[in-house]
Amino acid sequence: MKDNKISMAVIRRLPKYHRYLSQLIDRDVHRISSKELSKIIGFSASQIRQDLNNFGGFGQQGYGYNVEALYQEIGKILGLDREYKTIIVGAGNLGQALANYTNFTRFGYKLYKMFDLNPRLIGLKINDVEVLDVDLLGDYVKENDIDIAYVCTNRASAQNIADILCDNGIKGIWNFTPVDLQLKEGVVAENIHLIENLFTLSYFLKEK
Amino acid sequence: MKDNKISMAVIRRLPKYHRYLSQLIDRDVHRISSKELSKIIGFSASQIRQDLNNFGGFGQQGYGYNVEALYQEIGKILGLDREYKTIIVGAGNLGQALANYTNFTRFGYKLYKMFDLNPRLIGLKINDVEVLDVDLLGDYVKENDIDIAYVCTNRASAQNIADILCDNGIKGIWNFTPVDLQLKEGVVAENIHLIENLFTLSYFLKEK
Repeated sequence: MKDNKISMAVIRRLPKYHRYLSQLIDRDVHRISSKELSKIIGFSASQIRQDLNNFGGFGQQGYGYNVEALYQEIGKILGLDREYKTIIVGAGNLGQALANYTNFTRFGYKLYKMFDLNPRLIGLKINDVEVLDVDLLGDYVKENDIDIAYVCTNRASAQNIADILCDNGIKGIWNFTPVDLQLKEGVVAENIHLIENLFTLSYFLKEK
Repeated sequence: MKDNKISMAVIRRLPKYHRYLSQLIDRDVHRISSKELSKIIGFSASQIRQDLNNFGGFGQQGYGYNVEALYQEIGKILGLDREYKTIIVGAGNLGQALANYTNFTRFGYKLYKMFDLNPRLIGLKINDVEVLDVDLLGDYVKENDIDIAYVCTNRASAQNIADILCDNGIKGIWNFTPVDLQLKEGVVAENIHLIENLFTLSYFLKEK
């Protein structure tokens, strides 16, 4: 990878490149030109060349990109060359849905435990992962050096849970609650604000 | 609203303004300056003034913004001044989680039916909403003039489902599958690509 800082816009496009390259590998495609890649991924060929230029000389004039090498390199940039210890806080429908996504495991996000305060959920196993009492959350995160917590609690509990996670050394939070969490410095987060995405959709519906 | 086209970046920030204004209303705050709003929402005061300027003269020098009026106006721009007929395709964990989100109903997104191909799910009621056989999907969408479908199927079924929806007059698709759907012209979509968001999170973990 080149030394210069990669822009956020490029970073946000990398997972999409990764996904399409994975599909090309499944279809046994070994190399592809920026023009062909443009057709399937929907970015312009010059955008693609510019984006992928950030990571050093993958494309070769007249040859195109080596699909497998590019896939591996982008995976590395995204941090997919290691395992992550993950937990889910909030074992309701959404938490259970996430626990059942086998795709996450496939890419190295290993789910260790789930946590909830509901006595009817505590003790259950969801896709072979045990639901523990949320009272145990802090100690568990600290003792097991958990990397990422998927937070799927209700709005009212979200910040309190985030505080417990931060106080016990969590590194990243994947936030599904409609709250902008206040986090300790150094803890990173990505947010899925469902309702905001739905609002954007209805804006487009109105405008079309 | 002014005539000039509002940029996508502003549009994508509107749901967040809407959410924070709603919280201010709950706290009985009637007016707020761009500076105070900046502190809670995290955008700069000048960004806020610039964004909200797009919608005509809401802020008054020395007075600030009228919270309720601004909330209503942004809601209108987002298309929240009407009801939407919605359905969910795919009644697994994620579909069930979405069916249980009472927040969507509160903002006018009324859930009519769910659809699945699994005989064990067909006939169930999730949060009082019936799960129908997916074979009935096309006719149902056409006859009931459904606005938005939340698509939570597996990857393999996603495009086929999208085709059925488009052929029967769907207006918008909220896509939770890891597929970039090919849609009929005029059908709008928003995508929640979970795994891509998680990849971005691990990128940040690596970089921090």
